[in-house]
Amino acid sequence: MKIYKDYEDLPKIKLPLGQEVSISDSTIRDGAQMPGIVMKSQQKFQIYNYLHKIGIEKLETFVYNDRDRKAIKLMMDQGYEFPEITGWARANPADIDMVLNIDGIEETGILMSVSDPHIFDKMGLPTREAAEEKYLTALQYAVDHGLRTRAHIEDMTRADNYDFTYPLVKKIMDIDPDCTIRICDTIGFGIPFVGVDEPFGMPSIVQYLKDELNVKNIETHCHDDFGLAVANSIAGYWHGANWSNVTFLGIGERAGNAEMEKLLLFLARRIEGFDKYNLECLVEFAKFMEREIGIRVPRNKSVVGNNVFAHESGIHSAGVIKNPFTYEPYPPEIVGGKRIFLIGDSSGIEVLRYKVQETLNELMDVEIEIGKDDKRLRAIQAEIQKLYNDEKRVSCISDEEVMAYVKKYFMFNPMVSKDMHRKEDEENGDEDSDSNDTLGNTKARMHDLVD
Amino acid sequence: MKIYKDYEDLPKIKLPLGQEVSISDSTIRDGAQMPGIVMKSQQKFQIYNYLHKIGIEKLETFVYNDRDRKAIKLMMDQGYEFPEITGWARANPADIDMVLNIDGIEETGILMSVSDPHIFDKMGLPTREAAEEKYLTALQYAVDHGLRTRAHIEDMTRADNYDFTYPLVKKIMDIDPDCTIRICDTIGFGIPFVGVDEPFGMPSIVQYLKDELNVKNIETHCHDDFGLAVANSIAGYWHGANWSNVTFLGIGERAGNAEMEKLLLFLARRIEGFDKYNLECLVEFAKFMEREIGIRVPRNKSVVGNNVFAHESGIHSAGVIKNPFTYEPYPPEIVGGKRIFLIGDSSGIEVLRYKVQETLNELMDVEIEIGKDDKRLRAIQAEIQKLYNDEKRVSCISDEEVMAYVKKYFMFNPMVSKDMHRKEDEENGDEDSDSNDTLGNTKARMHDLVD
Repeated sequence: MKIYKDYEDLPKIKLPLGQEVSISDSTIRDGAQMPGIVMKSQQKFQIYNYLHKIGIEKLETFVYNDRDRKAIKLMMDQGYEFPEITGWARANPADIDMVLNIDGIEETGILMSVSDPHIFDKMGLPTREAAEEKYLTALQYAVDHGLRTRAHIEDMTRADNYDFTYPLVKKIMDIDPDCTIRICDTIGFGIPFVGVDEPFGMPSIVQYLKDELNVKNIETHCHDDFGLAVANSIAGYWHGANWSNVTFLGIGERAGNAEMEKLLLFLARRIEGFDKYNLECLVEFAKFMEREIGIRVPRNKSVVGNNVFAHESGIHSAGVIKNPFTYEPYPPEIVGGKRIFLIGDSSGIEVLRYKVQETLNELMDVEIEIGKDDKRLRAIQAEIQKLYNDEKRVSCISDEEVMAYVKKYFMFNPMVSKDMHRKEDEENGDEDSDSNDTLGNTKARMHDLVD
Repeated sequence: MKIYKDYEDLPKIKLPLGQEVSISDSTIRDGAQMPGIVMKSQQKFQIYNYLHKIGIEKLETFVYNDRDRKAIKLMMDQGYEFPEITGWARANPADIDMVLNIDGIEETGILMSVSDPHIFDKMGLPTREAAEEKYLTALQYAVDHGLRTRAHIEDMTRADNYDFTYPLVKKIMDIDPDCTIRICDTIGFGIPFVGVDEPFGMPSIVQYLKDELNVKNIETHCHDDFGLAVANSIAGYWHGANWSNVTFLGIGERAGNAEMEKLLLFLARRIEGFDKYNLECLVEFAKFMEREIGIRVPRNKSVVGNNVFAHESGIHSAGVIKNPFTYEPYPPEIVGGKRIFLIGDSSGIEVLRYKVQETLNELMDVEIEIGKDDKRLRAIQAEIQKLYNDEKRVSCISDEEVMAYVKKYFMFNPMVSKDMHRKEDEENGDEDSDSNDTLGNTKARMHDLVD
């Protein structure tokens, strides 16, 4: 018999191959390319500081214009050991020279598009061979000038990998056996499951690179067009990749990239012995992105949304009040979040009692416990349900409104005789009230329900 | 050699077991429980109509109060064959009676919480056996009264499945062999990969139910706390589940549920022979949810976000203008979306040319083609880059502003002599401009870049 009654009871998972894994950031590169977003140098610098706090190992940046270089200087001047600042270049010597011109950058990504639409339609090259020659020449140039390299194999999940990409990677390995091969799932076509072959299967791609081509450094870069970016990133790790390139909040081109915060949470909370990242600033970081960069964070966004630790519905709130483990995935403070209870149309008596009690205690500075069947409490509940039943009210009940109710029912008429408590309204022992009480249909809705 | 140059060239995937799969909706149930959201009867009815348009097979609803029943009546009165309207009940006869009281409902879910924190802390039951007895009694009651049943095995991914849940399911099958077993990944702990065992592994749970317990109808219901809800839903199908219970936009408790739109897209675009759903109203449906229910849809939300077919950065836009397949995951019209080109700080000359040309043609009602090296175009580009380099501008250039630039440079001074075109600024053949031209560092930023 197994008993899981607390976070510590739940078993941790092992990555099957047990390799060390790291995260590289593209928030100020792919993220900054997000249509409609403009990121200032100072903002990139602030993002860098958050990444440092978290413990992200590496980031990449453009090096093209004054704003890029200003941001790089601000970041370099911090003197931090991590994130390492790396460059980004197209596959030509002129671009690589621009990276070389920045003091302190020792690694660069080099764009190598491998799908036919990218080679022929986008770049207008005559043959795949012309593309290969261009890429290998640029790589050789970078190596000759002392840079560590990263090959960004663009649109690999829509490419003829067996006939073009893998032979190309073999030649890349001949030039630089330490080159990091970035699997760019550029349009999000990757599939995280075993058994899916070329060109989509993330496990099959990682395994081929690792086992057949002896690539030591494998990185994923996954887009979310089909909603699988995070799963594909984890599938990369699962089958042998040691890097995942992501953005905070998943910002980026189109549907964006895999979300850094989800990957962090997965590694930190689910993988055995994984404690190198500090997640405590994630909620604050998200608020920064919302306020400064204008990224909308929906309430139900995993890890950093306002709702992740918000409880409104009946059973749910009642459960969390009794034991947060019942309906919370991890303690809020892990990510710098805060538990909140909301009173809305799906709230039960338990959360209302909790809020009313809290308000009373605040008002009177004493510890008061009120019964779930206190008539005044039930009267407040009835008033609130009436608001929603009229179908005009569309928002939650604010703390100020709760205060007003408390004053109305408790402060101005604080004395109640015992028989004012409704005897017929006893608990039935399983959920937070029964279905026979006198409030009738307004009430049943108050024990909301979850799966 | 394989050539993938168009959507039709890309191979479709087969679900390994080839079973028929369906989608059930929980938008007006779990979705309506989302803290901060209030859904009116009329709005639930409108959601039902969207679900019908898409072709969703089933939905579930509460039956507790007048608002619930009003919504059910509106939906029933449509007389649609699908989505089938099913009920939701806690495991007690009183709740099931409320379902039975609604004419036309033939199936109900019954909540059966199986994790220890839910049994002991939330429900306050003395033993697991007490929980089992309660659940089976309710199930028997539903069956005896002629309902089709669905057992909502709550918090199954944190439960002692081998010792408690599976024996319970065996008894459920004895009572009702057609009962749908819903695997509720209530707190989002499910893992979509093979090889992860109790209690997290979605493949292992589905396989056990199917192979060891002969469950015919298996449904997943996945929450997104760890960002894996969609992958877990698909993993369910992958290993033999035939239903997935989801919500539109993933609304719901905390981080919400698996997003219906992502699942629809995956099935419709990636799985062989799958054409029973109509996705054309998805973007409109999302706008409805944003406008009417107040759900924030971030720009980079897969399938329905404003950015999914928005192109701003240099290479990216240039690629799409040449051939949309280069950087689009599927044609926009599939989901009722629209391609847009934005001019921002990462835009290249190609998208600016496209927009200026479009504006000119609109203004003059003729077909004008302007060269990429047209001096007036380059002047507009320089003006725009200056805005961003000053680091004060934080938004895109609106269509009205483009219009003003066009008027300034083209309309009031439309005559240019040939030598005004900059000869030195020729293409280098690989990306949409070179890095040696006279606009210097403001310009290099204009060929933005993607992976």
